[in-house]
Formats: sequence, structure tokens, C-alpha cells
Amino acid sequence: MQMISFENDYTTGTHPKILQRLAESNLEPTSGYGMDPYCASARDKIREACGRPGAEVQFLVGGTQANAVVIASMLHNYEGVVAAETGHINVHEAGAIEATGHKVLTLPGHMGKIDVGELSSFLQKFYQDDSQEHMVFPGMVYLSHPTEYGTLYSKEELEAIGEVCREYGMALFLDGARLGYGLMSLESSLSLADIARICDAFYIGGTKVGALCGEAVVFPKNNMPKHFLTMVKQHGALLAKGRLLGIQFDALFTDGLYFEVSRHAIEMAEKLKAVLKEKGCTFYLESPTNQQFILLENSQLERLNKHVKFSVWEKPDPGHTIIRLVTSWSTKVEDVERLREIL
Amino acid sequence: MQMISFENDYTTGTHPKILQRLAESNLEPTSGYGMDPYCASARDKIREACGRPGAEVQFLVGGTQANAVVIASMLHNYEGVVAAETGHINVHEAGAIEATGHKVLTLPGHMGKIDVGELSSFLQKFYQDDSQEHMVFPGMVYLSHPTEYGTLYSKEELEAIGEVCREYGMALFLDGARLGYGLMSLESSLSLADIARICDAFYIGGTKVGALCGEAVVFPKNNMPKHFLTMVKQHGALLAKGRLLGIQFDALFTDGLYFEVSRHAIEMAEKLKAVLKEKGCTFYLESPTNQQFILLENSQLERLNKHVKFSVWEKPDPGHTIIRLVTSWSTKVEDVERLREIL
Amino acid sequence: MQMISFENDYTTGTHPKILQRLAESNLEPTSGYGMDPYCASARDKIREACGRPGAEVQFLVGGTQANAVVIASMLHNYEGVVAAETGHINVHEAGAIEATGHKVLTLPGHMGKIDVGELSSFLQKFYQDDSQEHMVFPGMVYLSHPTEYGTLYSKEELEAIGEVCREYGMALFLDGARLGYGLMSLESSLSLADIARICDAFYIGGTKVGALCGEAVVFPKNNMPKHFLTMVKQHGALLAKGRLLGIQFDALFTDGLYFEVSRHAIEMAEKLKAVLKEKGCTFYLESPTNQQFILLENSQLERLNKHVKFSVWEKPDPGHTIIRLVTSWSTKVEDVERLREIL
Amino acid sequence: MQMISFENDYTTGTHPKILQRLAESNLEPTSGYGMDPYCASARDKIREACGRPGAEVQFLVGGTQANAVVIASMLHNYEGVVAAETGHINVHEAGAIEATGHKVLTLPGHMGKIDVGELSSFLQKFYQDDSQEHMVFPGMVYLSHPTEYGTLYSKEELEAIGEVCREYGMALFLDGARLGYGLMSLESSLSLADIARICDAFYIGGTKVGALCGEAVVFPKNNMPKHFLTMVKQHGALLAKGRLLGIQFDALFTDGLYFEVSRHAIEMAEKLKAVLKEKGCTFYLESPTNQQFILLENSQLERLNKHVKFSVWEKPDPGHTIIRLVTSWSTKVEDVERLREIL
Repeated sequence: MQMISFENDYTTGTHPKILQRLAESNLEPTSGYGMDPYCASARDKIREACGRPGAEVQFLVGGTQANAVVIASMLHNYEGVVAAETGHINVHEAGAIEATGHKVLTLPGHMGKIDVGELSSFLQKFYQDDSQEHMVFPGMVYLSHPTEYGTLYSKEELEAIGEVCREYGMALFLDGARLGYGLMSLESSLSLADIARICDAFYIGGTKVGALCGEAVVFPKNNMPKHFLTMVKQHGALLAKGRLLGIQFDALFTDGLYFEVSRHAIEMAEKLKAVLKEKGCTFYLESPTNQQFILLENSQLERLNKHVKFSVWEKPDPGHTIIRLVTSWSTKVEDVERLREIL
Repeated sequence: MQMISFENDYTTGTHPKILQRLAESNLEPTSGYGMDPYCASARDKIREACGRPGAEVQFLVGGTQANAVVIASMLHNYEGVVAAETGHINVHEAGAIEATGHKVLTLPGHMGKIDVGELSSFLQKFYQDDSQEHMVFPGMVYLSHPTEYGTLYSKEELEAIGEVCREYGMALFLDGARLGYGLMSLESSLSLADIARICDAFYIGGTKVGALCGEAVVFPKNNMPKHFLTMVKQHGALLAKGRLLGIQFDALFTDGLYFEVSRHAIEMAEKLKAVLKEKGCTFYLESPTNQQFILLENSQLERLNKHVKFSVWEKPDPGHTIIRLVTSWSTKVEDVERLREIL
Repeated sequence: MQMISFENDYTTGTHPKILQRLAESNLEPTSGYGMDPYCASARDKIREACGRPGAEVQFLVGGTQANAVVIASMLHNYEGVVAAETGHINVHEAGAIEATGHKVLTLPGHMGKIDVGELSSFLQKFYQDDSQEHMVFPGMVYLSHPTEYGTLYSKEELEAIGEVCREYGMALFLDGARLGYGLMSLESSLSLADIARICDAFYIGGTKVGALCGEAVVFPKNNMPKHFLTMVKQHGALLAKGRLLGIQFDALFTDGLYFEVSRHAIEMAEKLKAVLKEKGCTFYLESPTNQQFILLENSQLERLNKHVKFSVWEKPDPGHTIIRLVTSWSTKVEDVERLREIL
Repeated sequence: MQMISFENDYTTGTHPKILQRLAESNLEPTSGYGMDPYCASARDKIREACGRPGAEVQFLVGGTQANAVVIASMLHNYEGVVAAETGHINVHEAGAIEATGHKVLTLPGHMGKIDVGELSSFLQKFYQDDSQEHMVFPGMVYLSHPTEYGTLYSKEELEAIGEVCREYGMALFLDGARLGYGLMSLESSLSLADIARICDAFYIGGTKVGALCGEAVVFPKNNMPKHFLTMVKQHGALLAKGRLLGIQFDALFTDGLYFEVSRHAIEMAEKLKAVLKEKGCTFYLESPTNQQFILLENSQLERLNKHVKFSVWEKPDPGHTIIRLVTSWSTKVEDVERLREIL
């Protein structure tokens, strides 16, 4: 019996429509480095989806790369980036931000989220400190949305954080590696246009939302750093065949495919939650997106391990394990059904 | 009438066999970050092609990235990398090497190549200098093969450079962004196995040789830097869906596809050279690979511009321009024929 | 009435014996960059004081510089440095460590100290983590001794931390910007020889212990990083007139001057503590070294402000302030007496 | 018989007036980090000497440090600094500029100087290049004055370079490690006020002109980079006892001491030149400042080596050596006389 996989949202290839578009355009010669008509078209469609006709869009290959390039390009040398302790840039990017010379300044993570009150206090204290000139200046706030715990910022929360950022002259950057799943969550109060209105930079994740690779970095306010392309190149992040990214995002933003695949993953996640609840599983936290965290006893873990692929999240004590089950654009109803049987 | 393109070797998509393999494997779930069976298989095939069963292979996305990651991972803080003045890392990578903190130490470029005698003198002088501790130590030699001018190192030349490197305790790194075209050149005296025997690190270019993206970095001597994967991640260069690279290189190294597509490009380049000679064009230099450089008068340039896409290389004087015409896996005989007609 | 200053331990010039030695040697020509006989002599005396005849000693100008140069020179690219959250490198060095590309990995600070149990748990958890290759490897432990809170590690604590470091293949680095005050503390259980035996690198602070400037970095175990001088130069940290540092440390390690000036500061601190206790002041923490922290009500703060210079440490609530009073080699008994009168 | 030294201009201690001022101020407590009254007074005097009442002045410890901090603080990430191939930052600073992530873009050196015509052509070519976005943007011109070869820019030359910089939006930075010797040269056509008017940043060297250490960085046009102090700290370049630098520069700019000691060195250099000419020595180049370069046969070299300390500059062929003889504030007439006897 084949294993079923809830291991991650990047375990399969790409949405068939993307494959098809790659095949159709394959022999057509285009210029490199994102100067091709597919990238141009994809940029237009993204601008429209964001409701920002003047937004600047640059396609990068992956998430860590997008974080490092954007953060390093927007910060001054004397600045660092504020993030939740559990933020991806602080934990799982092998020090990519620090490798560009910038400190990650941490705030407590509340199921992956920062608290606007704590952000505000931190900044107030910083600017009251006599020795602030000997410290790293907070130049940007980094959020992941959905967070690494599958949780979401509400519109009110994002607005409030944005206001604090403006008050202190900081940029607000949103890591949307899984943005689609946030936007399509049943509990989402944020639209793409809201995000584009509130944030100074964000990216629309492709890799985890049906593309082979690719993240669309958006500077919504005519604020793309000067010579951004050169800095992308300097980071080794400029794809020669930029069309590979353009074609994918063009497909994803044609007829709402991006939202459709995201909605599918959310539906699968909701079914999964129902099954897990039905089977009496203990949820480690309430996630309204495509990542579900449950607490298992060792015996349960062992049983599941035989039939299902998932990630081990944490071991709160020797007898228990928190695991993560993830749905995606390619999760099938049958996968969830089989999980029910297994449980 | 449609333009014909000799603009570059990354203007079209990918070899149909690669597209096919991407489609076939599309729904199969695999682990991420290069831990999938396609990457494993591709590694094996590359090891075999190199004649180095113990070689370590890591797939990266692009050339600048591969250069920066390999160079920064192999050098000590006090070291720089020696390259031809015209080397890609010194000119067209937006300072990607320096951005990792390392100096590029330049030698004169002779149609893209460094001279082993000049390398030797440079090193001798360096180690005789009383103030050498105030200088950047030469820790590595970087070669591109083929060079940016389409020229090739002979086996004797590469052996000699390798010997000098060993004498001075330096690594020898070969940028093979267009390696296939070098190996299949009619004038090549170097096999993949020779390169793997002589160099300490090199990469087999995919992007410019028929893949959508991807470079296969090879450490042939059990000398991959410790925790290389972590440093790849730190540079934002670790692809989540590593399979995208694995599948492509697996296809390229199945039944000699990599060599076949390269040979095709060389055949097209030879035809192109014949046409250019026939038409009395002045060659700026003798290139035995897929890049051809010719000197045009302004009137010729204008005429060509209407029908053909190419790159402008240099303007030696106001009345003349050196242009570059490039063939690739996807160049068709008809393209060359049409060029003859246009000329 | 002139203000008295307990503001810091770097408010005055230098010990008169150092001035005298500078004057005596002034016109004698010597080679630069630390290659002079004064540096040589100072190195010998420091080796002897450490009980390590083979120790390597390099003089740097200041503390942040010493931290950045040592840490960047000893870590691999994939490594970070573990420190207390309150550690100087994490708070008050303007991101100097991150500017060299390395992350500071924080542990809770217990009045400035890290806890060996927490260190051990952190490392154990790190090496059990499946995604450790996506994380920054802990390559070094950084301690300040005395800490930023004036507290001290005991011999047992330092031994235990050293053991954990060896177990995990990490370097142990001790920031001794105020080392003299730690060694001469009435509660010290650590000698210079102990520190040299247990640590892989440390520095003996001069700037805050009677010199004009200068920190003596010691690699006690024949483990100075290769081409360390070149890396010092690369950081802009190589003094042309290295003799300025050599002469000062030669004076400080002649006839035990370093220990004498440190002991004096401790005696003054003990007197200060007695006065503060006598006057009913609330101590924020128990410090056995030359920094004393007391909690004042706003009215007390105001009164003191008129006659005494000190640092404001923290405002725990709107009505109270924690201030820091610091003694040094140049504190006079009369200063403490006058403080008693003022209080 | 004792050796006489023409080895360098940093072989002795400091001018007696500086020693005296250090002694006089020694026990006076002051705030740290350059916030003391001596630094304030020195800044005022330097502003006046430059004829720029609004100039911003920051004291750093050494030359490499000053170069790295200023260059890294003024450049954008996508920019490099243009310098002569022989420029100190390109050769003898161990890669300090590249360690901050910036490329040094080289122009030919003409006895240490760049040529304004070559600069202009380089920039023109750069901005005509189609692939300029893949290259490092020239963001600043770095000059050393006097150069590493003791040569000087004329007023006309500096004006012309300044004009080109303004035309291309680049900063002009002048490394004045030996500025005093340039200003007092018999052939100087540039005053301190000229330099302050033409350049965007420069520093007045102390280390090589009579101080123990210290360089005064001047931003003459109200253009000090924002939070420069924090970046100084981040580079490990902020001296705790900033007074050490303030006192020295205050002394040097009181009653024209800086110019007096420089003039003395120039007088000694002129005497030295006369002696060398009298003895028939071959000058390698015409230097109007305190560094003299002569070409010796091996037998002459051997003889000199017994009595005189100097630097070996270069070996043009196995039978000859170019040596450098340097005078300074502390060179005595007798030293030159003794050299005549030796020759």
C-alpha cells in the first residue's frame, strides 16, 4: 500500500495548467532576465489582482532568497529587521539575513504572530534608550502571513502594525510564501488589495502554491529600491530564463487559478480537520489554513508513520510529539479519506 | 517576416525530453531540498559521466549563484579568487563575489583565458612580497570554460594551471555554464573526466545547455565544504522543489542527452561560421564553440538588426561594432539558412 | 562644586606609569603593526601571567573590534555564536557581529550570565532537530566576564561551560573587557591561568582597566586562526603604531600593575557598596565587581543628578530608575566620601 | 653604531606637545565615544582650518578603518568604488573594502594617480553598456593624496575629477593619510580649503603626521551619512576613550602644529633629495613629498642595509631594487647628515 503524503505543500510538481503553458511557449525565443512578454503579462495581472496599477513586481526563485534580497535592499547598514522569534528568517534560513549584514531583532511569537502592543513597547523603549546609537536600529517589520504555525493576522492587526511602522519610519514587509492559503482561509479578513495597501513590500508565494518555483515580490507604492535588479543579480537571484517564472505566474493569475488552487487546499484542510476531530485528535493549535498541528502519543505516532508522511514539529515531552499535516493544491479527497481509515 | 534569434543560448524553453519527464513525474510526491530520488539518480549519472564514483554533486539554480556559493564556501576570510579581468565574476555578476566579502584578484585576459605563466609570476611575486600579510591571499583560481569569448583551455593548459594551484595550495574552480559546448567543440582536448580529475570544483551548466534552469556543482575529490547545504540555504540558493533540478539533470544525463544537445549547437555554430566566412564577415576572434563574434560596419549592423536578434559586444570605434551570434540546442538549420539569405 | 563621576571606567586618561613609559620610549624608532620590541615584551609578560608559554597574543584597539574580529575569524560561514540575550555583542555593538555575516544565537540572561543547563538543552535540541541543516550551527559560546551586570562566573560554572563546548566541538570565547575587576573581585574563584586553561580565546581588557585603549586577545592553545594578522587588517583593526598598545600592556603587566589597578577599583567599589548600604539604598542586584546597580525613586535621582555623574540603566516603572555607579583605577577615596555626604 | 631609520613615517611615538596635552588632561573625567570637550574643540579647529564652519568631523583610529567605514557608509549596495590599481584600498588593506561587500573598480595608476580622461572614458563606457545592470555601479572615486608613490594631484586635476564625479552623481573621497605632507609640499597647489570644497569626504591623517593614532574624517558639505556613529560602532571603530583622538587633533590644530610638523618633514625630504642627488642616486620617480624612491644596485643595497632602515618597494629585475626612504615630523637633520656619510 502506497504511503499518503501530508508532508508539505511542495512535495509534488506543478499545476497542470502551468505545465501546459510551459509546453506551449517552449520554443518561442524571448529575452532573458525577466524582460520577456510572459513576465510583463504576469506583472500586469498581479498589479490588477492587487488593485495597484503602479505596483512594481519582480519574480524571484524561492522564499529565503526573496526574504534576503528584499530585506537587504530595503534596510540601511545601521538597521535590522524586527520579527517574531519563530519567524522563518530567524530560525530556518540558515542565517541568510545575517549573512547580508543585518540583525534580526526578535519579539515574542504568539503562535507565530507578533503582537502590536509588544512591537510598540519595543520601539518606544528603543527610542528612549540613551545608548540607542550603539544599538541596531529597527528599520523594518517582517511578518509571515500565514505564519509558520498556519495562523493569520486579521485586517485590524495588520492595519495596527502598519500604523506603528509608519509612525516610526519603518518598512512593513510580509512574507507570503503561503499567501494563497491565507487569502482563501475561511477566517481571512484580508484581501490581496488590503495587503498591497498596508504593506511596503510583500511576496506572493508560488513554490508552495502550485508553481514549480517562484515568488512574486511586490512593491506596491512605487518604492522598489533603486537598481533592485542589480541587487537581485548580486544575490545570485536573477534567473537567466526569467520566462520560467513569468509563465508560471501568468498562468496562476489567469482566471483566478492562484485563488482556485489555494481554495482547494483550504477545503482539503477543512476536511482534514473534521476527520482529525472526529477521531479525537488533540489539536496543538487552531490553524485556519493548510497546516494542521496535532499532538500524538508515541504509540499513535508509530502507527501513523507506517502509512502517512508528515513532519515532526516538536517534542514537548518524551511521550508526545507534535506533528504537522499539510494540504496543498494537489491534495486529493481520497488522501483525506484514507487518512480517516488509517486513524 | 519573423525575426530569427541568435541572441543567446537561453532564449528558448527546454529540451522536449525534459518537459516530458517533468510531466510524467508531476504528481508524484517527493521530499524537498534535493532529497528526492530524481536528484539521487541525476547525481549517480553525473558521477558516472565524470568517472568519479565518489564525487559530490549539488544542484543550484543559476550561474552567478553557483559561482558565489562555491567561491564563498571554499575560501577563507583572508583569501580572494584569481580570475581573468574579463571573467564573468569580475564583470557581469554585479559584484556577487565581493558581496560575500571576497576580492577578485585579476590577471590579464587573453581572449577570455588566463595565461599559466602570468599566473605563476603573480603568485611568485605575491609570496616574495614583504607586505603580503597586508594583502588578499590568492586562495583559488577561477576559470570559465568555454570562456566568455567562446574560447577553450587545452588539456595541457588546464593541467599546467592545476599544477600551479596545487603548488600554491589553491583550489581550482571551473565555471562550466556552457561546459557542454566546450566538451563537444571540434577543438576540445578536454573530457569531462579530465576536468573532474584536474579541478577541485566545477559546474556543469544546465541553463544554457537545454534546461529551464540549473547548474550541477561537482566536488570531484570528496572535498565538498562541510555543511555545504547549509551554506547553499544561507545564500538563498536551496530550491524547495529540488526535484525540478534533479529531473532536468537526470534527463540530460540519460542516454547522453547533454552531449547530444551540445553537439547540435556546435554543428549549428560550424554552419554559422561557414556562412559568415562565405559572406566575407570579419571575425573578431576564432571561437571553436557556440558563440561567434564578428565585426560589422554600421551599415551592416543596421541591416542585420531588422531581421536578426543578437548581442552587441563592444564598439571598438564609432564606425564599427562587434556583435555576438550564439547557437544553442534549439537552433535550427533553417535559422542559419535564413541568416545566409539575409546576409 | 565640581561633579564627581561614577559614570564609567573609561572616563579618565591612563595610569601615570603608562604615560611615563610612552614618554620615555617616544623618540625611539620601531617597526609598525605590532612587530616592535614593546609588543614582544608585553606578549611575553602576558603569556607568563596566563601560565601559558605557548599562548599567542594580539593587541587590538577596542572591545567591539576584538569581539568582531575574534568571532568572525573563528567561526565557519555556517556557524553563529551563542550568547546571553543581554550580552554586549547582542545589544550594544550596533550589530557588529551580524555585519560580519554571523548570527548571535541567544540564551536567557541571568543577571548577565548564561546557565550551563540551558546551554546544554539548547544544543541537545539543536542536534535532535530534523531541520538543523536549515539552521545556524552553534559554533562558539561567548561569555562576558565580568558580565554587563558586574556578575561573575565561578570556576565550576566556567569549567562546566567549557566541557559542554568541547562536547559539541564549539569554541569558548570570553570577553574580558573588565577582566581585571573580575580577577580581583573578593568573590572571584577564577585566576587568569584558569581562564587560559578553560577558554579557547579571551581578551584582557585595557581600555576599561587603566589604559588609553587596547585589548590583549589571547589564544592560549596554539589555536590562533591562520593569517589572523591579515584578518585583523581586513577589519581595519591593525594599528600602524602598534607600539602604542605594546607599551601600555608592557607597563600593565610589569610588577603586577594590571592587578594593582584592578584591586584598587574593587576596594573603591566595596567602600561604595558600604556607603550605599549605610544610606539605605536598594540594590538592584548583588555585584561583586566595580559596577554597582541601585534603584532610585525619582526624587532621589534628581538630587543625585546635581552632584554625581552616573549611567541610567533602566526604568522599571515611571516612578523609579535603576542607575549604575562604576569605580575604576582612578576613583579616589574622596570621591566615595563625597558621595556619602551627598546622600 | 645605531641604525638610522627612514623606514616609515610611523616609526616613532608622537609630537611632544601631544604627549604634554595627554599628561595635562589625564585625570579629568570626560564622557566617552567622542562626546568630550577635547573632541568638540578639535572639531571646531578643523572646521576652521578647512574654512567650512558646517563641516562634520568624526575621529577614527586608523587609515584602513577610515577607508572602510567611509566607503561602506557612503555607497549603496549596488555600487563600488573607483580607484587607481595601485591605490591603498586595492592593494594593501587585505580586502577591507570587499569585506564590506563592495567592489574596488580599478583604473590604471600613473605613479599612483588616476587620470581624469581615463576616468571619464570609463564612466562613459559604463553608462553606454547594455548590460550595465549586471555590473557594479561606480558610486565613488577614491584618491589618495599624496598617493602611495608620494605624488600629488594639482588643483586643476582635483577640480576636473570633482566635476566628473558631480556629472555622474558620484562621491569624491580623498584618503589623506599623509595629507599634511601634501599640503606642505613645495609643489602643492591645493589648500585644505580647496580639498574641503572639492571633495565630499576626506580625512586628515594623524597617525603618519605626528599623532600616536587617529584620522579626522571630514564631511564638508553637511553630508555625513545618517547614523554615521552607529556605523562606526558597527565596524568596531568607535573608541571608548574618544578623548585620546580629540586631544591629539586639538593639539595638532592649535597654533598650526599639524602644518609645522608636516613642513619639517618636507624640509627633511628636500635635504634628503639633495643628498641623494649629490651622491648620484637614481630616482625611480619624482616625489614632491616625504617619500623618496630610489633605484639601487644589489651591492649598494647591501651596504645601505647595514646602517639604514628603509622599505623595499619593488624588484624591477634580479640585479636592482627600488627602495623607499621616508621622512617625518621626527626626522632629524643629523639623520640626513649621517646618511650622506654612509653613502
